[in-house]
Amino acid sequence: MNPISGKRLPFHGYRSILWLLFLAFAGLTHARSTDPLPSWNSGSAKSAIIQFVQNVTEKGGPDFVPPSERIATFDNDGTLWCEQPMYVQLAFALARANALAPEHPEWKNIEPFKSALTGDMKGVLATGERGLVELIMATHAGITVDEFNQNSDYWLTLSKHPRFNRPYKKLVYQPMLELLDYLRKNGFKNYIVSGGGVEFMRPWTEKIYGVPPEQVIGSSIKTKFEWVDGKPVLMRLPEIDFIDDKDGKPVAIQKFIGRRPIAAFGNSDGDLQMLQWTTVDNYPHFALLVHHTDAEREYAYDRDSAIGHLDKALDEAQQKGWTVVDMKKDWKQIFPAANP
Amino acid sequence: MNPISGKRLPFHGYRSILWLLFLAFAGLTHARSTDPLPSWNSGSAKSAIIQFVQNVTEKGGPDFVPPSERIATFDNDGTLWCEQPMYVQLAFALARANALAPEHPEWKNIEPFKSALTGDMKGVLATGERGLVELIMATHAGITVDEFNQNSDYWLTLSKHPRFNRPYKKLVYQPMLELLDYLRKNGFKNYIVSGGGVEFMRPWTEKIYGVPPEQVIGSSIKTKFEWVDGKPVLMRLPEIDFIDDKDGKPVAIQKFIGRRPIAAFGNSDGDLQMLQWTTVDNYPHFALLVHHTDAEREYAYDRDSAIGHLDKALDEAQQKGWTVVDMKKDWKQIFPAANP
Repeated sequence: MNPISGKRLPFHGYRSILWLLFLAFAGLTHARSTDPLPSWNSGSAKSAIIQFVQNVTEKGGPDFVPPSERIATFDNDGTLWCEQPMYVQLAFALARANALAPEHPEWKNIEPFKSALTGDMKGVLATGERGLVELIMATHAGITVDEFNQNSDYWLTLSKHPRFNRPYKKLVYQPMLELLDYLRKNGFKNYIVSGGGVEFMRPWTEKIYGVPPEQVIGSSIKTKFEWVDGKPVLMRLPEIDFIDDKDGKPVAIQKFIGRRPIAAFGNSDGDLQMLQWTTVDNYPHFALLVHHTDAEREYAYDRDSAIGHLDKALDEAQQKGWTVVDMKKDWKQIFPAANP
Repeated sequence: MNPISGKRLPFHGYRSILWLLFLAFAGLTHARSTDPLPSWNSGSAKSAIIQFVQNVTEKGGPDFVPPSERIATFDNDGTLWCEQPMYVQLAFALARANALAPEHPEWKNIEPFKSALTGDMKGVLATGERGLVELIMATHAGITVDEFNQNSDYWLTLSKHPRFNRPYKKLVYQPMLELLDYLRKNGFKNYIVSGGGVEFMRPWTEKIYGVPPEQVIGSSIKTKFEWVDGKPVLMRLPEIDFIDDKDGKPVAIQKFIGRRPIAAFGNSDGDLQMLQWTTVDNYPHFALLVHHTDAEREYAYDRDSAIGHLDKALDEAQQKGWTVVDMKKDWKQIFPAANP
C-alpha cells in the first residue's frame, strides 16, 4: 500500500524482490572485499597465497582444480604453533617422566631419564635419537589410546609456555589460522602432516585448527587390539611404527591420503620432501616456508638451530621460487589475542 | 492480472508464494516416501538399517550423533563386491605373474610361481601365507605407486569374472551401493577398511562406491621416496608394511581415522574385531554381516570356506544381535543391471 494515497502500488512485489536482490548483491560485494588474511601484511607472500587460491578456484580458468583434488598439507611444529624453546611434545615427555619417576627408581642413574628428571634438555638431546626414542617409549606407551589421549590433553590444557606464560594451545599462529580458514572456505581439505605424535595432536586439532582427527597424520607407535575387563582396547606398545619426517612425509601422504597435495606448508628441512612431492609436476601447486625471523615477538632461528633446522629447504625455496614468509615483516600479529 | 476481468488481484504475490511453499512441501513429502534402499526386500535387516539411521539423525533424539562422528566402515571383498571364486586381487597377481614370467625363467620350478603360472589356485593356496606374500611381493613391488595404479586399474577394466563374464567393477552389490549412498546422504563418512591392498582399490573406489581415496584403508607394502630422472617418486618395496585384517582392522581404524566408527559392515571372521570395536560402548552403534546364502545368483559359503571364512563372527552376531543379511532373502537384486 502507498501509505499516503492508500492505493495499492502496481509493482510493489517486484520492488521488494529488487530490493532483496540488491541487498544480497551488496552482501556479496562486501564479503568479496573483506580481507581473508587480516593478520598478514601486504606483500609478496600474502599476494602469492591469494593469487594461487583465486587461480585454482576460478571455474573455467586454466589452473582450475576440482574441490576433491584441493588437498593442502601443513606441518605442525613451527608452522602452525610455536616449537621453541623445545617441541611441546618433548616438554610433555619430560613432565610425564617426572610423574612416572617414583615407579622407576633406576631412572635416576640412566640416561636419558637422568637428564629428563633434572630438566636438562641439552643432556636429553645429547643422548641422540636412541635416547629420545627411549624417552618417548617410556612416557607414551603401556597405556591404552584413550588413556593417552586423556593424559596428554589434560597436560596441554594445564601447562604453560615458559616464556609467554600462556597455554600451548594459545601459541598457535593467528595468520596460519586465517590461512587454514581461507583455504577451507575455498574448498580445500587441510591435513596436518607432522613429525609429532598423531595421538598427541588429535584431541585438540579440530577445535583449534578446524582439522578433524581423520585429517591428522603424524609419527606413531604400534598399538595392539586387546581385551581388558571384557572390553576391547588398543594398547600402546613401546615400539616405533612410523616416523613422519623428511622422506617419511611423502610416504605418509600417499599412505593416508592417496592423492598428491596441491599446496604444502612447512618451516624446516623436515618438510623439504613434502614440498618437493607437492611441486613435482605441471599441476597447479603452491609451496610455502615459514621463516622464523622475529626474536622479539617469537623466536629467530634457521640454519644453526637443532629444533626447526632450516637450511637446505631455504636454499631450495629460493631456487624454485617457493613462497618464504618473513615472520617479522609479513605477519601483523603472531598469536591470537589473549582472552580478555 | 486476472485474465478475465483484466483487474490486478490484490493477493497475487502471496498466492504465488503459497504455491511455491506447497510445491516445496510436496517435494519433501515425496522424497520422504521414496524408498532409500529399493534393492532390499522388506524384512528385519532393512528395517534395522533404516531405524538406526533415523535414530542417529533425529535432532534432539536420545540417540542423536553429530555428523562429524557418523563414521561408517565397510569391508570390501565379499561385503561390497564379489570375492569368489578367488579374491579379485589374487586373480590380478596371477595375471601379473604370467606377464612377468619371461623375465623370471626360474619361476617355472619354484612355488608359488609354478602353480601361479599354470593357474593352479589350490597349489598357490597350499604354499600358505609365506607363498602368498612372496607372490604379492613379486607382482606388486619394484615399480612406482603411479605405475602400479595404472597397471592394476588397466587390468581391472579389461578383465572379466570367469562365471559372470562381466568386468569385476560391475560385480559390486547393488544393495550395498544403495546403502553407501543412503548413509552418505544422512551425513555419514564412509570408509573402506579392507584386507585388500590399498593401492589396488584407490583408483576406482570414488567412481564406483563414492568413496574417495583418502577414505580407503587397506593392507600395504612399504614405499620409499626416491629421485628418478630428476623427479621424486614413491617406489614400492618388496616388504609388507601392514596387514589390514582381523586385529589389524581396529588398529588401522584408529591409526587412519582416529575416531571409533558407529557403524561397521563385513562378511567374514576377518571383520570380527572391527565389529567388536564398533559396538563396544553405549554410544549408538550398528553392526552388520553379509551372509552369502545365494548359490544361484552369487555364491553360498560361510564356515567351511577358505575365502570369506565366516564362523566365529556369525556366532557372535547371533549372540549380540548384530544384523545378518541373508543375501538370498534380503536382496532383490545382487549386481547392478547390465549396461544396455
